[in-house]
Amino acid sequence: MTERTLIKDLSALPDGPVTVSGWVETVRDQKKVQFVVLRDESGALQLVNPRSVDDQGVVLADEPATTISALTQGSFVTATGELKHDERVKLGGIEVKLDSLTVATLANPETPIAADSGIDKRMDWRFLDLRVPRNALIFRIQTTLEHAFRTYWIERDYVEIHTPKLMASPSESNAELFKLDYFDTTAYLAQSPQFFKQMAQSAGFGKIFDIGPVFRADPSFTSRHATEYTGVDAEISWIDSHEDVMRMQEELIVAGFSAVAAKHGAEIRELFDVEIVVPSIPFPRIPLLEAKDIVAARGHVVDRNDDDLDPEGERQIAAYVAETFGHEFVFLTDYPASIRPFYHMRNDEDTSLTKSYDLVYRGTEITTGAQREHRVDILEAQAVEKGLDPHELDYYLDFFRFGVPPHGGFGMGLARVLMLMLHQGNLREVTYLFRGPTRLQP
Amino acid sequence: MTERTLIKDLSALPDGPVTVSGWVETVRDQKKVQFVVLRDESGALQLVNPRSVDDQGVVLADEPATTISALTQGSFVTATGELKHDERVKLGGIEVKLDSLTVATLANPETPIAADSGIDKRMDWRFLDLRVPRNALIFRIQTTLEHAFRTYWIERDYVEIHTPKLMASPSESNAELFKLDYFDTTAYLAQSPQFFKQMAQSAGFGKIFDIGPVFRADPSFTSRHATEYTGVDAEISWIDSHEDVMRMQEELIVAGFSAVAAKHGAEIRELFDVEIVVPSIPFPRIPLLEAKDIVAARGHVVDRNDDDLDPEGERQIAAYVAETFGHEFVFLTDYPASIRPFYHMRNDEDTSLTKSYDLVYRGTEITTGAQREHRVDILEAQAVEKGLDPHELDYYLDFFRFGVPPHGGFGMGLARVLMLMLHQGNLREVTYLFRGPTRLQP
Repeated sequence: MTERTLIKDLSALPDGPVTVSGWVETVRDQKKVQFVVLRDESGALQLVNPRSVDDQGVVLADEPATTISALTQGSFVTATGELKHDERVKLGGIEVKLDSLTVATLANPETPIAADSGIDKRMDWRFLDLRVPRNALIFRIQTTLEHAFRTYWIERDYVEIHTPKLMASPSESNAELFKLDYFDTTAYLAQSPQFFKQMAQSAGFGKIFDIGPVFRADPSFTSRHATEYTGVDAEISWIDSHEDVMRMQEELIVAGFSAVAAKHGAEIRELFDVEIVVPSIPFPRIPLLEAKDIVAARGHVVDRNDDDLDPEGERQIAAYVAETFGHEFVFLTDYPASIRPFYHMRNDEDTSLTKSYDLVYRGTEITTGAQREHRVDILEAQAVEKGLDPHELDYYLDFFRFGVPPHGGFGMGLARVLMLMLHQGNLREVTYLFRGPTRLQP
Repeated sequence: MTERTLIKDLSALPDGPVTVSGWVETVRDQKKVQFVVLRDESGALQLVNPRSVDDQGVVLADEPATTISALTQGSFVTATGELKHDERVKLGGIEVKLDSLTVATLANPETPIAADSGIDKRMDWRFLDLRVPRNALIFRIQTTLEHAFRTYWIERDYVEIHTPKLMASPSESNAELFKLDYFDTTAYLAQSPQFFKQMAQSAGFGKIFDIGPVFRADPSFTSRHATEYTGVDAEISWIDSHEDVMRMQEELIVAGFSAVAAKHGAEIRELFDVEIVVPSIPFPRIPLLEAKDIVAARGHVVDRNDDDLDPEGERQIAAYVAETFGHEFVFLTDYPASIRPFYHMRNDEDTSLTKSYDLVYRGTEITTGAQREHRVDILEAQAVEKGLDPHELDYYLDFFRFGVPPHGGFGMGLARVLMLMLHQGNLREVTYLFRGPTRLQP
């Protein structure tokens, strides 16, 4: 490896020789002195090169001056020189006086995107867009958040599974489905790990989680839909109701947000002007029908043909919860069966309702969770009621025919959580490489 | 939640009332006493129910006797009773004298698979197959191994990325490619995260990893190929050669194997009769051409038309390494360019060789790694030399045109590592739900 010091670690070092590597952000090629701002994954640093002059005071075309004059923005270089602490240097109070500069790759001098480029243009050049510290930070936050989720689960003896993405039949519905030729037959891309995480309950795994891609052939172009995204899924056995799933999920979110606040709180404040709030437990819970009354009382008429809230309704209920409970999260519970999949368990007293919930964070739904129907006769009847063909579901129904404990779980969109956490308006900002109806590259 | 005690935790408890939940493994319904072996995710337990008799000594049809008589294998139940420590009980020296038994689901009395069922039959009924403790343990081991890998990386400031699986063009080759209709165009399933993890280097991320599914439309039916599997990938900047990648990977493997040995060593010994050996560092390194000479000297004629080793050759070199160095791993290095992809960097002195390696574990290749060519003119020439159309690679070549540091990485098949670690003969055994040319269900 190149023996380099990360830029963030320089300020703690004494004056003396150092080597740093990164890419060129700016070059000021002045007559008497040259300045280069070098950035690496940890920060930015000023490199300085006072130009050599001969006895007559004529500036010499020596090294590294000549190399610096030819530098383009984005070029990757390794610089060796003398670290100097100097309070007058705006960039961190340090600079490196260059001894040598080695160019790894000289970048094309074009600059296809600028700070004010539109989002589609930036996505075309995503690898340049991700060099912006704020954008790169998003993926460090994602790493911390995910690792905290996994650690929460693993400390509690959950098993991590990788469910297959290639399926012989649709997992959720026949709509929004990608299909492909699979040798002599047809395969479908998994719309969720739903069936296979339930299988783990029948297999006696007890508690599992699965973080992986899910695919939706969703033609919509909204700021919160993607055709491929990372799903964070869990499923647990021996629950009494969806309340047990909600209790686990709120603890999980507290673990994740605590880790992000501890590790990145200051940077997030600086680069996003956002304060990460670790939510208090329990999160508020409001039955959906009650939430609809609250929204109506606030003067919003829900614009949908079914029993669900619309996006503005979600924002209204979130505003109500923020005002009333000072909380950014709310569980909306007991959704009508009419707008829930066949595998959600119905409420014992009122079978028009399900033992299910959505989790709304800062006005947007990030999760659907539920207790699952584990009694195969009821499950099959509910599938028929939803217009599904039980023969196509036969392999799934077998999981129940041969014994399964009561169970439930949830699915959460990782990018949605990040988008809302960082007050971003679009999933594209928080997805490494976004996929939508017209976006397959890079 | 059902307030249950895990079976493994019972032996540490004093005699007294307990509740356990799990599935029925066997029932012995005798005239005077009934025995049920109950299993949960942590172990197995004997439940005992001495049958009640009336004043005349006639056995009564009361509860839980009647429920026990109707129990089928695989039914999920919750049992409450008195825990008793009794050295005479073979199963762990404890039993629970039943007070009550609640059936969650009564399983279909058929038993589609048995201990001696063939692997295809077992895969048809994978959810039952995974109830076997040895099979379930595999996924606890996988969880521990992966978490140790991730923790190793995260402690060293790597960023976890999720590369998209939907691509506009092939990532590796035009062979073994799944394609699908994607709105008005065609998409391909990623054969590896190769291009996108390299993109992270151009984006200045420095060090990244990515664990996710990869897809190969490979029609072969061998024990070590699948059409979908979990790839463990890493890519790092500012390397001097593939040696830097190898050094990271051997440390990573030691971290993973140490965690598995510490957490599951005893169980693995008991259920697999396998001793987990934490390998010593450095792993042996042998240039491929030298390895071929060694294999030839051992009398094996490699049966291939290209410059690679065949599977028997891999076994032979592993045997040589085991005999000579007492090691289960060997890095085979400096592969000929003829059998490496265009993006592997060539050796400076001998351009017929690449700065690449395979990692062979117990006689089977588990990884290909390399330093990547980051000089775009050389990269493009190598693509043309391999018969690829540089226009199709334009978006990928842009990553290099706009600056990229020297970098390299590897891809490792998670299931292959598990298969070899546990001395299994087939990937099907260590994959949650295997996918092959004729296997899409369940």
